Amino acid sequence: MAMKRVAASALRAFTSSGDSTSSLVTRHLHASPGSKKIVGVFYDAKEYAAKNPNFLGCTENALGIRQWLESQGHQYIVTSDKEGPYCELEKHIPDLHVLITTPFHPAYVTAERIKKAKNLQLLLTAGIGSDHVDLKAAADAGLTVAEVTGSNVVSVAEDELMRILILVRNFVPGHHQVITGDWNVAGIAYRAYDLEGKTVGTVGAGRIGRLLLQRLKPFNCNLLYHDRLKMDPELENQIGAKFEEDLDKMLPKCDIIVINMPLTEKTRGMFNKDRIAKLKKGVLIVNNARAAIMDTQAVVDGCSSGQIGGYSGDVWNPQPAPKDHPWRYMPNQAMTPHISGTTIDAQIRYAAGVKDMLDKYFKGEDFPPQHYIVKDGELASQYR
Amino acid sequence: MAMKRVAASALRAFTSSGDSTSSLVTRHLHASPGSKKIVGVFYDAKEYAAKNPNFLGCTENALGIRQWLESQGHQYIVTSDKEGPYCELEKHIPDLHVLITTPFHPAYVTAERIKKAKNLQLLLTAGIGSDHVDLKAAADAGLTVAEVTGSNVVSVAEDELMRILILVRNFVPGHHQVITGDWNVAGIAYRAYDLEGKTVGTVGAGRIGRLLLQRLKPFNCNLLYHDRLKMDPELENQIGAKFEEDLDKMLPKCDIIVINMPLTEKTRGMFNKDRIAKLKKGVLIVNNARAAIMDTQAVVDGCSSGQIGGYSGDVWNPQPAPKDHPWRYMPNQAMTPHISGTTIDAQIRYAAGVKDMLDKYFKGEDFPPQHYIVKDGELASQYR
Repeated sequence: MAMKRVAASALRAFTSSGDSTSSLVTRHLHASPGSKKIVGVFYDAKEYAAKNPNFLGCTENALGIRQWLESQGHQYIVTSDKEGPYCELEKHIPDLHVLITTPFHPAYVTAERIKKAKNLQLLLTAGIGSDHVDLKAAADAGLTVAEVTGSNVVSVAEDELMRILILVRNFVPGHHQVITGDWNVAGIAYRAYDLEGKTVGTVGAGRIGRLLLQRLKPFNCNLLYHDRLKMDPELENQIGAKFEEDLDKMLPKCDIIVINMPLTEKTRGMFNKDRIAKLKKGVLIVNNARAAIMDTQAVVDGCSSGQIGGYSGDVWNPQPAPKDHPWRYMPNQAMTPHISGTTIDAQIRYAAGVKDMLDKYFKGEDFPPQHYIVKDGELASQYR
Repeated sequence: MAMKRVAASALRAFTSSGDSTSSLVTRHLHASPGSKKIVGVFYDAKEYAAKNPNFLGCTENALGIRQWLESQGHQYIVTSDKEGPYCELEKHIPDLHVLITTPFHPAYVTAERIKKAKNLQLLLTAGIGSDHVDLKAAADAGLTVAEVTGSNVVSVAEDELMRILILVRNFVPGHHQVITGDWNVAGIAYRAYDLEGKTVGTVGAGRIGRLLLQRLKPFNCNLLYHDRLKMDPELENQIGAKFEEDLDKMLPKCDIIVINMPLTEKTRGMFNKDRIAKLKKGVLIVNNARAAIMDTQAVVDGCSSGQIGGYSGDVWNPQPAPKDHPWRYMPNQAMTPHISGTTIDAQIRYAAGVKDMLDKYFKGEDFPPQHYIVKDGELASQYR
């Protein structure tokens, strides 16, 4: 299969060269001859870059692929400067072939940028979650969009369980007492609970959701999941979670809700004022998926009124979160910057995944099928 | 068995009454006639007391047993004022029969207090961990000391897993960025890891340690435990942890060390400067057991030098921790006040356990055997 596609791609690349009318066709081909201009947008690590040799996901260490790329004659530009018409990224848009971005410091790949990027063929996400790319525009332009599916699912699932416990235990006010010289056990304990016996529902039970459910199993909770598809009975039984076909029937049962869906036009703003009002009073919400699944102000209002007992996540809209983002200052939040999927272990995995896809791209080979978000002008099923 | 013991106790109580030379014998009997003076020392909840009807462990709600005790003609005094010669507790020492204390706001029951407490028969710990009682003095005085074994083991084990993840993920600096208006993913990520694949060792694998290991199992770690006794092979296999007979051979293998031992004369100061120096550089330590198992300054020095990569726990020496306790201000700590065992769920369980033991005490019946810390002048095995 793969070999057939390579041959076909190589042929099309060859036949289409110099034919300006077929540029849209050309753009989604895996292979094209000669040197490529590859641009990577990562976060800067500055003094932290040298502190850990495996800290690959920053501009300074640039996924650890510079030498490999340059030895093959490719050009590799790396920057964190991604916003506005005069940023470093914008300078390279007109002639780059490949753009590598991450969800942690997202370069927003808008329809306008795609239009300007006449040589662009491939958009790679170092990590998981490509909603910072206008996927429809990318599909219409015949681009390939791919991410390193699976590279940080364990990282995110572990982090979700941490956040569940942080909210259930009221950790943040407890730690705050310590650093402010206070000691008031009652002020923490009056709303600190065991996780055992509570009802936890995940909205979405894909790779991350399932890993979370597996890790929750020994906690003796009542586990629920909503997804487009019911798991096969054996897996469901092994995980010990109950399928809920109707989201709005599941949600009011939950003491704790975890969001595990991609951001799509269907999920955008899904947790609005009305839906939050129907949740159990004092519900705890963990969202490491995407911030725009929530109505920002509805979350602030819910946390302020006590309708939401606690909210924790690492995703913001936009990112970086501005200094005045209201989630920074709402009560009962346990937020961090976007971090759960960029552990050192995850960086090693997604750097390897990006390198592997670049290698296949240079050779005109297919990527692992689960990595494609847009292929041949078609969106992957979860983004439709 | 139990009935035989009750009968014997009742007989001894009867035969010893009025015989002043046998007062030491009298003091450890379960049953004695008439009204009892019971004193409980808990933390104050103030405005939080009314916020949750199940918030039983505070002075205001007093384990929810006031009506039950007073309806039987007993006197029930409750206070949080436990320190110094003029505190409320001290006033009642000379004539109380039963003293209920907790590890969360410990009333230190010294040899001197025991000597003054001529009527004292029973010391009950609402929770687990009775090291705030001078157990040798209690045993010598023929007292019974009992705690609600099992009442909060799940609570503490869950909390330990939370703290492991908080340290592994570098959560505290991440959250600090949020509330201070900052955004610097690199400043968190350069030392944020997955838990998967790491070596976790528990020093002590009693009830809490085992529950922790069970909850760690799906995380795909390398699990080690040191204890006086090897688990039976079936349980060990089910938990998936490897026994390490020699503590000092286990410790240097661990990325994460969790302390799950009682404080005894053998474990006091066990983690001193020398032992900490032999750990893996950057080791993470979770200690919800007792603070005095650690050398306070050695922990500060380890966190400052980076030898300890992170330290989290809820136990302090003494408690409440004074404003200038160095663990409040050392780097890489994720401390809280003493909270892990006093969740609302745990309070419900230990309040019920104390009530049950008082009921048995009034009736001259034995307690559940695992609750005894000192019985008939003998320390329970783990305190010897």
